[in-house]
Amino acid sequence: MSEQVLQYLSENRKQLLDKLHSFLSIPSVSTDSVHKQDINEAAEYLESYLKKIGFDKVEQQDTGGHPLIFAEYNQAGSDAPTVLFYGHYDVQPVDPIEEWKSEPFKPEVRDGRLYARGSSDDKGQVFMHLAVFEAYMNTEGKLPLNVKVCIEGEEEIGSENLYKTLHDKKDQFDADFAVISDSGMVSENQPTILYGLKGFTGIEINVTGPDHDLHSGMYGGAVRNPIMALNHILASMKNEDEVVTVDGFYDGVEPLTEHERELIKNVQGEYYEASTGVNETVSEKGYTAKEHTMARPTFEINGMYGGYQGEGTKTIIPSTATAKITCRLVPGQDPAKIQELLEAHIHNVAPTGVTVEVKKEKLSAKAYKVAPDNPLIKKAAKSYSEAFDKETVYVRMGGSIPVVEWIEDIYNIPIVLLGFGTPDDRLHSPNESFPLDSFDKGMETLVRYWAEIND
Amino acid sequence: MSEQVLQYLSENRKQLLDKLHSFLSIPSVSTDSVHKQDINEAAEYLESYLKKIGFDKVEQQDTGGHPLIFAEYNQAGSDAPTVLFYGHYDVQPVDPIEEWKSEPFKPEVRDGRLYARGSSDDKGQVFMHLAVFEAYMNTEGKLPLNVKVCIEGEEEIGSENLYKTLHDKKDQFDADFAVISDSGMVSENQPTILYGLKGFTGIEINVTGPDHDLHSGMYGGAVRNPIMALNHILASMKNEDEVVTVDGFYDGVEPLTEHERELIKNVQGEYYEASTGVNETVSEKGYTAKEHTMARPTFEINGMYGGYQGEGTKTIIPSTATAKITCRLVPGQDPAKIQELLEAHIHNVAPTGVTVEVKKEKLSAKAYKVAPDNPLIKKAAKSYSEAFDKETVYVRMGGSIPVVEWIEDIYNIPIVLLGFGTPDDRLHSPNESFPLDSFDKGMETLVRYWAEIND
Repeated sequence: MSEQVLQYLSENRKQLLDKLHSFLSIPSVSTDSVHKQDINEAAEYLESYLKKIGFDKVEQQDTGGHPLIFAEYNQAGSDAPTVLFYGHYDVQPVDPIEEWKSEPFKPEVRDGRLYARGSSDDKGQVFMHLAVFEAYMNTEGKLPLNVKVCIEGEEEIGSENLYKTLHDKKDQFDADFAVISDSGMVSENQPTILYGLKGFTGIEINVTGPDHDLHSGMYGGAVRNPIMALNHILASMKNEDEVVTVDGFYDGVEPLTEHERELIKNVQGEYYEASTGVNETVSEKGYTAKEHTMARPTFEINGMYGGYQGEGTKTIIPSTATAKITCRLVPGQDPAKIQELLEAHIHNVAPTGVTVEVKKEKLSAKAYKVAPDNPLIKKAAKSYSEAFDKETVYVRMGGSIPVVEWIEDIYNIPIVLLGFGTPDDRLHSPNESFPLDSFDKGMETLVRYWAEIND
Repeated sequence: MSEQVLQYLSENRKQLLDKLHSFLSIPSVSTDSVHKQDINEAAEYLESYLKKIGFDKVEQQDTGGHPLIFAEYNQAGSDAPTVLFYGHYDVQPVDPIEEWKSEPFKPEVRDGRLYARGSSDDKGQVFMHLAVFEAYMNTEGKLPLNVKVCIEGEEEIGSENLYKTLHDKKDQFDADFAVISDSGMVSENQPTILYGLKGFTGIEINVTGPDHDLHSGMYGGAVRNPIMALNHILASMKNEDEVVTVDGFYDGVEPLTEHERELIKNVQGEYYEASTGVNETVSEKGYTAKEHTMARPTFEINGMYGGYQGEGTKTIIPSTATAKITCRLVPGQDPAKIQELLEAHIHNVAPTGVTVEVKKEKLSAKAYKVAPDNPLIKKAAKSYSEAFDKETVYVRMGGSIPVVEWIEDIYNIPIVLLGFGTPDDRLHSPNESFPLDSFDKGMETLVRYWAEIND
């Protein structure tokens, strides 16, 4: 393990943080076309940084959507393993903007945390990897293993073009194993190895009643209210025990073993109330909140809207109502099949007098699990424990990373999910942040891991 | 009946329509403070018009909110009756603006209809009264009865300051009877006397879960989704038979008599599908759509919103969800009591894990009914029938006009609801319009009515 690499990181901490700040200052929001230029700027930032580090080959690849950054280092020799490092440089929208204490794209450090959109998901964690590569090159003059870098700009919009790239350019991207840092620890400074991820699928429901908003006095009592119709549909899909009541939704879901319930129980930190501000946690009947979030499928309405939203009252029967729904899936559930079940249920319960349309979202992924005793996983856990000076816990989590499913599907190689985020990072929300502790110890973890790999 | 007055109206039709256009061109939206100047401009328009007509006294009254226009004509002699004419010059918001075929405040005539916000509700109908007064003054040099004019600028926001004015200035506003033209006919060119109006009340429900939007992967399964919680609450308030399932909601509602069902049945025009575009009408179990809209209480969700509404998907559990609800009430229902029943029901069924707040809207009104055989009503029906050359029908309708309840409450005088709108006017919606037929025949109705009064 190379002391001078760690020394480089601590001696150059300020310059590295400054570099990170300028990366986070680029509003690379992928879902909104007005940020097209910012997306390109973020891609160029990565391209020039990777070139400066000294990668043999660095290129921006045209995906048809936002550019993908590919880089390759192959001077570790043919006997050294090759890792495929994946990350993404795009970020979520920032609305509601008024809830941010500091501007989302003006990074600010408060109480040991770095506040900025993307600080945790995922620009901050991508940067840690690049900084560690820089440290190795500027001290030992080489990297301890061969590296392929794949950083995309479309993760937050479903990685629409990534599968095609990974599939069509298999020779270029192929490696012995993959490492991804786009996840988190179960609590701050608690080394956490993710050995399972949930799958994902989504639909949008559009209910149309009258062809224009109606005066509720003239027509109230004659037509079905689209919002009420949508309420009846949605209320029939999940009951107050948080059990999804859509026929077949749980078919094929493998039951939680006592051993896994034990593993989940051992995960420290009942952090839900503290980090969300809810007065009590609520979870699927028969399961704890930890079990439900980590290992049971979920059904969430992400947004719903219809009718008047302005000041005061407006006495109308609205013309339309819309709901956006996403489900997190576990092994045994097929995303496309779940979409069909949801659609069938909706048409089955839809009230008369309205037209109901179900739009299936393209974005979807199967759930993923890897054997916790895989040597690459064990080495990661060891480096993690040493850097944070704490035993590593193994968990499954509710997040979905489509690329994980695709890498397994196309390359069939082990995937190490080495994430340094924390439950308080507020991903996808106002005031996203990342602890500087995770920044420092996370980079140390990576330095140790790359060294471990070649032992 | 004065032929020359009618002649004046037909000879000066173009000039009168031009005048109306400039009145409608003023965006006097009362709910939005950015239109404060436009409100004042509309008030000044009326003040100068009334002065030009030759009213003895014309003044803008400071209500604390938007100004109220008062005018008085008292030269018909002490033996002539005095009418209180009420109307409003404020209009509803225009959103969604993109659905307007022509600009809401650039009046345009298409296929015999005048398109503009306020053309029917209520600036267009207010203008007809002023034009008829002008016609009388410019031909006979006097009005056939004494007139008090009360035109407010806050009807669309609940006439917040009107009750106080009517109450505190009783001597100034007092009259023998009142006439209001802020309603419509059951079908185009079908003379319609409104002898009953619904009451009105409203609430807003705010559901709060987590204190910020959460990543649905990290927290899905641990917290209650506020939108789903609100769905369960709302779905429990009205069932798919369109029956309100809130305890006590129908208490005191007088049953529909066979005679009234007969009256309602005789109202021509199953116009609901045609004018709304719904594939079928839906009404309270046991009642026809006409019976429900005219004579049974209603419960409508006017707007609902929570979470993400933008392009694409955003995988969050939203922090809050909101619904705006208004009910139309019939005789026997008390608005304040209904608000209490709704609030009690909501807190009763509210799921755990969220905070539910109910805001009671100030705007409310009791239902109103007048005897159809009142002589003032009969004379109105006669003039109406002669002008439109068709038998007048007597109906109750679902609209609510708080001022009607207040005039009855404070002055205890008969109120004649003489409305010339039509079911296709799209009140409160994009592309509001008013038929020029109603404009011409409506003014003739008024000319005949004022003459009738003094027979």
